[in-house]
Amino acid sequence: MSLPLSDRAKVMPPSPIRKLAPYADAAKKEGVKVFHLNIGQPDVPSPKEYWAAVKGCELEVLEYSNSAGIAELREKAAADYCKQGINITADQVLVTTAGSESLSIALSIICNPGDEVIIPEPLYANYIGFAAGTGIQVVPITTHIENNFALPDSEEFAKRITDRTRAIVICNPGNPTGSTYDRAQLESLLKLARENNLYIIADEVYREFYFDGERPLSVLQLDGSDENVIMVDSVSKRFSLCGARIGYFVTRNAALIDPAIRFAQARLSSPTLEMIGVIAALDTPLSYYDALREEYTARRDVLTQRLRAIPGVTCPDIQGAFYAKVQLPIDDSDKFCKWMLEEFRHNNQTVMMAPGTGFYSTPGLGKNQVRIAYVLKIENLNLAMDCLEVALAQYPGRTVTTETATAQ
Amino acid sequence: MSLPLSDRAKVMPPSPIRKLAPYADAAKKEGVKVFHLNIGQPDVPSPKEYWAAVKGCELEVLEYSNSAGIAELREKAAADYCKQGINITADQVLVTTAGSESLSIALSIICNPGDEVIIPEPLYANYIGFAAGTGIQVVPITTHIENNFALPDSEEFAKRITDRTRAIVICNPGNPTGSTYDRAQLESLLKLARENNLYIIADEVYREFYFDGERPLSVLQLDGSDENVIMVDSVSKRFSLCGARIGYFVTRNAALIDPAIRFAQARLSSPTLEMIGVIAALDTPLSYYDALREEYTARRDVLTQRLRAIPGVTCPDIQGAFYAKVQLPIDDSDKFCKWMLEEFRHNNQTVMMAPGTGFYSTPGLGKNQVRIAYVLKIENLNLAMDCLEVALAQYPGRTVTTETATAQ
Repeated sequence: MSLPLSDRAKVMPPSPIRKLAPYADAAKKEGVKVFHLNIGQPDVPSPKEYWAAVKGCELEVLEYSNSAGIAELREKAAADYCKQGINITADQVLVTTAGSESLSIALSIICNPGDEVIIPEPLYANYIGFAAGTGIQVVPITTHIENNFALPDSEEFAKRITDRTRAIVICNPGNPTGSTYDRAQLESLLKLARENNLYIIADEVYREFYFDGERPLSVLQLDGSDENVIMVDSVSKRFSLCGARIGYFVTRNAALIDPAIRFAQARLSSPTLEMIGVIAALDTPLSYYDALREEYTARRDVLTQRLRAIPGVTCPDIQGAFYAKVQLPIDDSDKFCKWMLEEFRHNNQTVMMAPGTGFYSTPGLGKNQVRIAYVLKIENLNLAMDCLEVALAQYPGRTVTTETATAQ
Repeated sequence: MSLPLSDRAKVMPPSPIRKLAPYADAAKKEGVKVFHLNIGQPDVPSPKEYWAAVKGCELEVLEYSNSAGIAELREKAAADYCKQGINITADQVLVTTAGSESLSIALSIICNPGDEVIIPEPLYANYIGFAAGTGIQVVPITTHIENNFALPDSEEFAKRITDRTRAIVICNPGNPTGSTYDRAQLESLLKLARENNLYIIADEVYREFYFDGERPLSVLQLDGSDENVIMVDSVSKRFSLCGARIGYFVTRNAALIDPAIRFAQARLSSPTLEMIGVIAALDTPLSYYDALREEYTARRDVLTQRLRAIPGVTCPDIQGAFYAKVQLPIDDSDKFCKWMLEEFRHNNQTVMMAPGTGFYSTPGLGKNQVRIAYVLKIENLNLAMDCLEVALAQYPGRTVTTETATAQ
């Protein structure tokens, strides 16, 4: 008789972003240069304010913090939201161990096992993981590369509402799609949520990453967002502090704060020294974001241009975040991404990407897609695109013939 | 129609250790000195090796780490276990965001909602929290202050096994009891677990805190522990690094590693800089632990002596960890602990303790008990005991008359 595993242990998916890491490690051991386009890990330096605060810390004992976060950080984060036009007070912000924990707490306190959340797909793969961990059903609405993964009409959401539906989850700007949603779209979703007594969980961790025009609106900036909205936020991308594990759970619905704090108390505290660093990072001047946006706009432009020049590749328009969900002329993105790491070399270089299937809840979708995180300097991005172009011409499972490919 | 909360949001208890924090904050604002005996937050300085590594870190970008932890930390932690006679390899150790996450992953991967875990009580309050968060039923076995909260015979455990039982959870040395379990007791529990196809989850985060004789045995040192045992560990107490949030999930059962890694991938990474600090902290010389034990032995002795000198107080024998689960001559520990913070002052000082009820799964137990964490210097511990002694004489809900109390 073997020892049992739980059902959630069985359904928890491996991360499509990380599951190929052993193959990348093996390639690196052979001396191959691997360009990491698989993971949203920016190469931008973390703010010097962060490093100065951490290195200048004069604590002797690294103590637990308040479960809801260091008071100064909650106050400063709230003030920062207000500066952005999002009216939030310190008691409406809980510090979490990154956006991951914020989402996990949000799902846990509003959903019972078996309850449903509606999410446009392709979606951030880890939503599937958190739903699996908490026994929640993801009800996907498939969006399409042909119209740049645009948000479906609220009628499409309405059709999927059942008596088990508890929330609509959106990511704006979108991981992995690069889409952003406008005021009319957000208002229509909020209206639907209010009419049907649903929450909106808005993952807005890419708020600073927008390329054309205005900063995308937060759902918390809409009238009527007080009761129904939970915002999931994080400093990981904004401050290039992915390793700090500091995020926020933000809502104006006071009824959610108490259970969220009780969940936070169960794990005692987020990392104290990291909070001290983030308090300082919040003094980062606005020019940091401007430079960030300029750099990512340039990267987006290069990526889009290079991808669209490769025969058989479809690259959607990208408005925000730093991902592209790209369609390739391949049979199977899992096989292709693994082949790139195990067998393909171009000038002793190769590229790691995230296979597309892990970003869909609907089985079978995304087989000819990959997610590309354009988090590298343009020079390296160009080298990575050189690799991809050659690889697509050589890959045995290509679905566009070599003749067609090379003729263009 | 109000927006619904989940069942787990309703049953997740507030932390008995932290729920009175607002009253302590209010007292401090009045200028009152509050001695914190409520929380296992040692006042011992964190290792200088930790601070040097963190402050000397030359990274420019604070990146995500491998979801299972930085390889060097896994290797060093495994080597450290081997030095202690616990044979563990690097691939059997996953780095987690403190012991809290290790326990949460362990419960999640072995239990479905509705499954049962047997735990001797009084128990670490947060076990109740994690069980609530994951929908697991705690089946308590009450232990008694009269015999120092000794581990019940395995027959007592056997009686509580049902077809929903998945694990026995023990904490050794024990929080909040201060008990340690010997080889014969552990062997008998492991035998029972093996016979009934159960896991043992062994929380051994207080391994270095033992006062009389030998270091307590780890369950992983027993023959036959390969399949059935998951050890929950943490550097929080050992290195006085509660705020670092670094722990370990340790097992030799290879079938558990893969699901645990998938759960870890869903939250991406533990804090990177903290891992870098802990890698260095593992070079802490053995003399650090010797000094730690010497200090805590002295504190235990003072605490025990002082408590036993107060009329109506029962203090059990304490063999390990740094807690005492003490019986007081009071009507209600929740009221008493709150009264201490709100109303009682002695030389403008008071004491914060954790009410006893939160450490029992059985409703109604622990009403005349508190948990005292003796994590303060002896001088402060004595001042705190002065406060407690005077408070017990004045408390309106005392159950020993003032005459009796002052006559002794």
